Amino acid sequence: MSEVLPDRIEEVISQSDLYSETSDTATVLAQADEVELALLLESLPIQERIILWQTIPDHKKLDVLIEMRSDPRAVLVSATEPEQWDVLFTDIDAEDLLELADSLPQELFERAYTALDRLQKQYYTEADQYPEEQIGHWISHDYLVLPINAKVRDGLRLIRREMPRHTDVIFLINRSGHFSEAVPIAKLHVLPEHLHLTDVSLDDFPIISAVEEGQLVAKEVLLSGFGALPVVDENEKLIGRIDVTTAAELMQEYYEGQIMASAGMDEDEDLFSPVRKSAKGRAIWLGINLLTAFVASAFIGMFEATIQQVVALAVLMPVVASMGGIAGSQTLTLIIRGLALKQVTSANVGALLSKEFKVGGLNGVIWAVVIGVVALLWFNDPLLGLVIGIAIFLNIIAAALAGVFVPVILDKYKIDPALSGSVILTTVTDIVGFVAFLGLGTVFLL
Amino acid sequence: MSEVLPDRIEEVISQSDLYSETSDTATVLAQADEVELALLLESLPIQERIILWQTIPDHKKLDVLIEMRSDPRAVLVSATEPEQWDVLFTDIDAEDLLELADSLPQELFERAYTALDRLQKQYYTEADQYPEEQIGHWISHDYLVLPINAKVRDGLRLIRREMPRHTDVIFLINRSGHFSEAVPIAKLHVLPEHLHLTDVSLDDFPIISAVEEGQLVAKEVLLSGFGALPVVDENEKLIGRIDVTTAAELMQEYYEGQIMASAGMDEDEDLFSPVRKSAKGRAIWLGINLLTAFVASAFIGMFEATIQQVVALAVLMPVVASMGGIAGSQTLTLIIRGLALKQVTSANVGALLSKEFKVGGLNGVIWAVVIGVVALLWFNDPLLGLVIGIAIFLNIIAAALAGVFVPVILDKYKIDPALSGSVILTTVTDIVGFVAFLGLGTVFLL
Repeated sequence: MSEVLPDRIEEVISQSDLYSETSDTATVLAQADEVELALLLESLPIQERIILWQTIPDHKKLDVLIEMRSDPRAVLVSATEPEQWDVLFTDIDAEDLLELADSLPQELFERAYTALDRLQKQYYTEADQYPEEQIGHWISHDYLVLPINAKVRDGLRLIRREMPRHTDVIFLINRSGHFSEAVPIAKLHVLPEHLHLTDVSLDDFPIISAVEEGQLVAKEVLLSGFGALPVVDENEKLIGRIDVTTAAELMQEYYEGQIMASAGMDEDEDLFSPVRKSAKGRAIWLGINLLTAFVASAFIGMFEATIQQVVALAVLMPVVASMGGIAGSQTLTLIIRGLALKQVTSANVGALLSKEFKVGGLNGVIWAVVIGVVALLWFNDPLLGLVIGIAIFLNIIAAALAGVFVPVILDKYKIDPALSGSVILTTVTDIVGFVAFLGLGTVFLL
Repeated sequence: MSEVLPDRIEEVISQSDLYSETSDTATVLAQADEVELALLLESLPIQERIILWQTIPDHKKLDVLIEMRSDPRAVLVSATEPEQWDVLFTDIDAEDLLELADSLPQELFERAYTALDRLQKQYYTEADQYPEEQIGHWISHDYLVLPINAKVRDGLRLIRREMPRHTDVIFLINRSGHFSEAVPIAKLHVLPEHLHLTDVSLDDFPIISAVEEGQLVAKEVLLSGFGALPVVDENEKLIGRIDVTTAAELMQEYYEGQIMASAGMDEDEDLFSPVRKSAKGRAIWLGINLLTAFVASAFIGMFEATIQQVVALAVLMPVVASMGGIAGSQTLTLIIRGLALKQVTSANVGALLSKEFKVGGLNGVIWAVVIGVVALLWFNDPLLGLVIGIAIFLNIIAAALAGVFVPVILDKYKIDPALSGSVILTTVTDIVGFVAFLGLGTVFLL
């Protein structure tokens, strides 16, 4: 059903009558929901994206913008006529604005903020106190709440009036607004109306603190078995909730962010960002890596005289570097995941180091022998085989140790190891590898 | 609340009285849910893991095993006494067994299967027809269902009897068991009891086909705004549902799988797998990468004579290889995400290629100049600067094109680009880089 759109992106794009409102395309678009439209818009080159944007009915536009990643969204924000915004902002609420704020120029942000009613303004200010990394920034205010002295009949009255998505419990708060208990809605139907809700509330219902890290909370909400969990401020006051859909969006953003970070990009990267913007964003990462490559070169440069006499060393350098880099990235990837899951702590890092050291030792010996023999046969030089074998062994061991230490130390200093871990790691393995290989070559082969 | 455990892993592990049931540790463990226990067990070295496992009450053990990744789980399966399994399998159902099946030796699997009642056996067989990649494998059978001629009063009666987690609608089926409509439970409370449910059902409720790909369905369920979506077989018969918690687990496994694949590992990798097993698993990936490194070496070997005369070429080789590899991995990562989101199709691949070509061209020119100047100053040789500049430019362009083509072609042949994309890509950039650099060096510098 709702899968119809992604499968037809191809068709839609290739149709030349994209902007005729009577076309087939228009029919497809009318059926699409905001998530699908957002994905479709992101997948289009900029000109086509703007054309399609203009055919989307105004009442859908705000929801579509909210679903989009911020880079591709920015293109559409600039392409929207100033007079259109009042229509778009008609029904905007605090959550919408929190999501959009970064993409709006100051003047537009102010128009949107003005369009909020008093309560939404208060919600906005409250959530905006928390940075984007903290879950307090992403709370919603659609939930069912009653005072702790409420009865089953009050609960029934409440659920007859409204029922926000993913609502399976009613939150109970005390006089100061502190979260107290949660009552499963399913129970309301089978209990006498005069019973107190506190008599049927759940023990130990999970509570989220607004300052907790977004992705950890997301996982907790998703695995809790409940549709949403309550969020409290530092005084235990109930300020909102996180439901499974919001949690899923946070989780997806987190993982996509991790994957993009490994290539020095971020989750908001646009498939079709303007060439200059894209080139600039990537240039920084290329520059950082260039510095580390020059460092490796500098170390090689120390052995120019050796290379001149034994050119085979130059030929085999990529093998030494590659084996260290790959072995290190395996350990690194495993440890980064362990850190994210809070499974790697100071209590088990010693045991991990010892295990990775042994794995590295075993693979080091195996590949040292294999590569040593290949080098011997290729260049008909047993000493060269010995030299590369020892270098490979040392580099794989160094890779294993760096694969544990680098992410653990970065994490300790609150630096995301998914972003910078592999640059630092390959710098280590390049240097160890080249110095060991060329150094031993200088000793044994000259 | 339920966050208590991960934070205390450290404490728990470091306590020497881990296996005294009267200790603090025992108290902490008693409060922990199965997800937390699974995470904790995975984070322990094997001996400690087995000791802790033995202190977990039998009635929790099956649920804990189900939450674990399969490699660390296998350790505990072998450490469990044969006579214990009958207790563990007491309440096993089809979903549990589908999750565990791969970790159980044949004999244990048969005991578990025998413990299922007739209905659960049928569920098992039904779901097991679908491979793990398809959503049909992961369906659950806890949902509310009524015939299409049912009335509001039937709905109310049903929800008073049972209310599975994440249930916000009742599914309606026709006489042949085909899914027909979904009725929001919230509406039942406000409608006359004699009304037909079909009069208040939702239009266009999303339906999942059992053969759809797990991770795509997971996203759809999570973003649908509903607690669960119905799954139908190829005859449109309702066979189960996927709720948001199952969807979240599938999504997490998918993303972790992508991240681990980039280092040639899989999502089930154990932090503390036995050294030999771990070394063996990683050796394959090291071997594949070694082959590509030898290919690069072979190309360098073609230019031995040149290197001997201009050793600076050997010194600068890592710079050429590194810039190509990094630029390529940026494009690759962006395209892999686009493919996963179904945003990259044959309709826009041309436009993407053209954009990446331009981005590569721009960054190629910039870094060619920077690196050319550095080389000139370092080795005081303008021709060397020219040679490396041209090689860098060509390699960044090649990287951009390979970054688009490699994943698109792999995807077309159903090979996961997250696993093999970067090996192939760096092989391309290594060869292009070395041949361009050393080849131009041979022409201009000899």
